[in-house]
Amino acid sequence: MVPSEVRALFSVASRPGVVSLAGGMPDVTALPADALGELLGELAVTRTAVALQYGSAQGDPALRERICEVMAMEGIRARADDVVVTVGSQQALDLTARIFLDPDDVVVTEAPTYVTALNVFAAYQARIVSVPMDSDGVIPNALEETLRRLAEAGRRPKLFYTVPTFHNPVGVTLADARRPAVVDICGRAGVLIVEDNPYGLLAFDHQPRRALRADAPDGVLYLGSFSKTLAPAFRVGWALAPPSVRDKLVLAAEGAILSHSVLAQLVVERCLATQPWPEHLKAMREMYRERRDAMLDALATWMPPGCLWTRPDGGFFVWVTLPPGVDSKEMLARAVAAGVAYVPGSGFFADGTGHGHLRLSYSHPAPELIREGVRRLAGLLTATADM
Amino acid sequence: MVPSEVRALFSVASRPGVVSLAGGMPDVTALPADALGELLGELAVTRTAVALQYGSAQGDPALRERICEVMAMEGIRARADDVVVTVGSQQALDLTARIFLDPDDVVVTEAPTYVTALNVFAAYQARIVSVPMDSDGVIPNALEETLRRLAEAGRRPKLFYTVPTFHNPVGVTLADARRPAVVDICGRAGVLIVEDNPYGLLAFDHQPRRALRADAPDGVLYLGSFSKTLAPAFRVGWALAPPSVRDKLVLAAEGAILSHSVLAQLVVERCLATQPWPEHLKAMREMYRERRDAMLDALATWMPPGCLWTRPDGGFFVWVTLPPGVDSKEMLARAVAAGVAYVPGSGFFADGTGHGHLRLSYSHPAPELIREGVRRLAGLLTATADM
Repeated sequence: MVPSEVRALFSVASRPGVVSLAGGMPDVTALPADALGELLGELAVTRTAVALQYGSAQGDPALRERICEVMAMEGIRARADDVVVTVGSQQALDLTARIFLDPDDVVVTEAPTYVTALNVFAAYQARIVSVPMDSDGVIPNALEETLRRLAEAGRRPKLFYTVPTFHNPVGVTLADARRPAVVDICGRAGVLIVEDNPYGLLAFDHQPRRALRADAPDGVLYLGSFSKTLAPAFRVGWALAPPSVRDKLVLAAEGAILSHSVLAQLVVERCLATQPWPEHLKAMREMYRERRDAMLDALATWMPPGCLWTRPDGGFFVWVTLPPGVDSKEMLARAVAAGVAYVPGSGFFADGTGHGHLRLSYSHPAPELIREGVRRLAGLLTATADM
Repeated sequence: MVPSEVRALFSVASRPGVVSLAGGMPDVTALPADALGELLGELAVTRTAVALQYGSAQGDPALRERICEVMAMEGIRARADDVVVTVGSQQALDLTARIFLDPDDVVVTEAPTYVTALNVFAAYQARIVSVPMDSDGVIPNALEETLRRLAEAGRRPKLFYTVPTFHNPVGVTLADARRPAVVDICGRAGVLIVEDNPYGLLAFDHQPRRALRADAPDGVLYLGSFSKTLAPAFRVGWALAPPSVRDKLVLAAEGAILSHSVLAQLVVERCLATQPWPEHLKAMREMYRERRDAMLDALATWMPPGCLWTRPDGGFFVWVTLPPGVDSKEMLARAVAAGVAYVPGSGFFADGTGHGHLRLSYSHPAPELIREGVRRLAGLLTATADM
C-alpha cells in the first residue's frame, strides 16, 4: 500500500457513520486537557525566552533526563547524553535510515511490519528481507537462517528492524525467552537492531517487558515515543543510540529541521515532572484494555468460522486472518459501504502479499463502537462466505 | 564550517559576558506571550480531539489558507492546495533536496549562502556551483554564464537555491530590476528556483518586495516560515510548490515525520486570525530596524579603516569584509575573549573561502548590547591592524 492509498483509506474511514478500526490513533480525549492547557500557557508566559526560541538539535537536556527515567521502566539504563529527541519516533526512524542506508542495502524486518517503516526503507532504496513471526514474535531460528543465507550471498544487512512488543500490525509480543537469542543472533552477525517501541508501556496484564536494549546497549538502537502514552500533538519521540550513531543522528536532525520545538519538549518534560505519570499510564492501560476486551469479545461472538485473530496483551492492534479466498483489499470498499473500515494486510508486507489478512485497531473508538464495527465486519464476512 | 563547529560557536557565544552577534535568532521576548499562552491553553482544552491528535501530512487546511493570505503580501496568488506545511522552512528545504537530488547532481547557489542549506545539499552529496553577488543581489549575467558553462559541460543543475530578499548572510536584496532576468534565465535553462524567504516580511523601509514566485508559479518553489515573524517554537514553515512537486513533498513529509503538530499549526492559524497581524509585523519591523540602525551606527563610529559592510534594509544580517590579511575564523577565539561573537565568513562558502568576511546579526541583542558588541569587535580589529 503506497502512502496515497493510506490517505485515501483514512479519508473514507472518517466518513460519518463509518466505524473506523483502521487508524492507530490514541484516544486523546482521555488526556487531562485542562492540565496540559495550563502547562502550555504557563510555559509560553513564564519561560518565553527559552520556550519560544530555537533549541539544540539534540533536544532539551531536562527532557532527555526524564526520557531516561521512562526507559528505566523497561530495564534500560541510559545516559541523557545518548538520547536524541525527534519529531515523533517516525523521524528517528527516518534519520536512522538516512544515516545507515545506501541504495540496495539490505534491511531485515518482520513480516508483516509497520507500513511506514517499509515506506521509509523504500524511500532510501533499501532491499527488504523478511523473517516470519508466530504468536511469540519473530522466530529466532528463522532470523538466524535468514542472516546465514544473506552472509553466504555476501550480504550483511545494515539493520534488523523490529517492533518486539505489542507489534504493529500483528499485536503479538516477542517472548521473553526469545529475546536473548534475537540479540545474540544479530550481535554475532554484526547487524544493528532497531527496536521500535511506541507501545511498550501500554501493557495490559503485567509490568512493561524488558526492552531488547536493556541487555544490549551497543547492539540496539532504541526508538521511543510519547505519541501513544501522551499525545501525538507534541511530536516528541526519541532515539537512544550508541554514541557514534548518536552524533550522526544529531547532525542529521540539524539538517532536517534545525531543532525540535522547545515548547513541545518542555510541556512533555513538565508533564512528566508534575503530573502523576504512573497513574496516567495506569488509566491509559485500563482504557485500552477495556477496548481490547470489547474487540476480542465481539470477534468471538460474531466472526464466522475460518477466521483467526491474535490476542494482544498490550498496544493497539488485532491481526485477523480471513478464510481462504477472501481478499481484504478487494473487500474494503464493501466494508466501508457496510459501515466499517480496517487496514488491508497487504500494506504491511514488502512483497505485497498478505491479502488474506487485515489489521483492526481498538485504540480510538469507544467500546460500543468497537463492538458495532466488528459486528458489521463479521456480517460482511459471513455474507461473503455464504456467496 | 561543519555543524559541530556551529554548535561549538554557539556554546561559546552564549557564555556570560559575551555579546553574541552570531546567531540569527529572533527576539521572542517581544512577542505577545500572554496572548499566545492563552491561545495554546484554549486550543488544548476546547479542540482537544483535533489539536492533540495526528494530522494530515500536508498540514492543516485552515492554516494553509492563512499562509496564502500571508504570501499575498508579496504578490503571490496561490491555492491552499499547493501549500505543504513543514517543520520550519528547514524541513521544506531538506525534503526538496531529498526529492530532487541524486549524488553528484549540481545545485547552483549564491556565494556566500545560508550555511545550513550548504549542509543539506552536502548531505545529499550534491555538487555546489556558486554565483557571485553584489549589493543588488545575485548578478544575472554571472548566473547566465554559469548555467551556460554547465550546459556546455553537459550538466543541467537541478536547482538554483537563492535567498533573494534580505539575504543570509549578506543582508542584501535582489534588486527589483534584476528579478525578471533571474526568473527568465532559470526558466530558459529549465532550472527550478528555490526561493528561500524567511525574512521577506521584515522590510524596514517600504512594503514587502514582490517575491520571485509571484511572477513564475511554475518555475519557483517558494519556502516560507513563521520562525522569524512569529516564533521558532511552533516550527511552522511551508513550501509552495507546483502540483507535481507538492505531491512528492507530501509523501516525503509523511515518511519523515508522519505529520506536523496540529496544535502548533492551529496556534499559528488562530494567531493570524485573531491577533492584529499587520500591527504585529509593524512592531517587529520597527524593533529590528532600530537594531539595524544601532549596528550600522556603531560600525560607522568604531570600525577601523579597511573594513566594509553591507546596509540591509530588512532581515537580520550585516556582512563585514575585513582588511586584507585578517582571518575571521582565526580571530574568533580572541573576539570571544574580548567579549563578542560572530560567525566567520568561511562557513557560508561551499569551497571554504570567505575567511576575510564575517556575519553579524542584530536580531537578538538589545541596541545597547549591539553597540557594545560592535565596539569590542572594532577594538580588536584596530588592535590587529596595529600589530
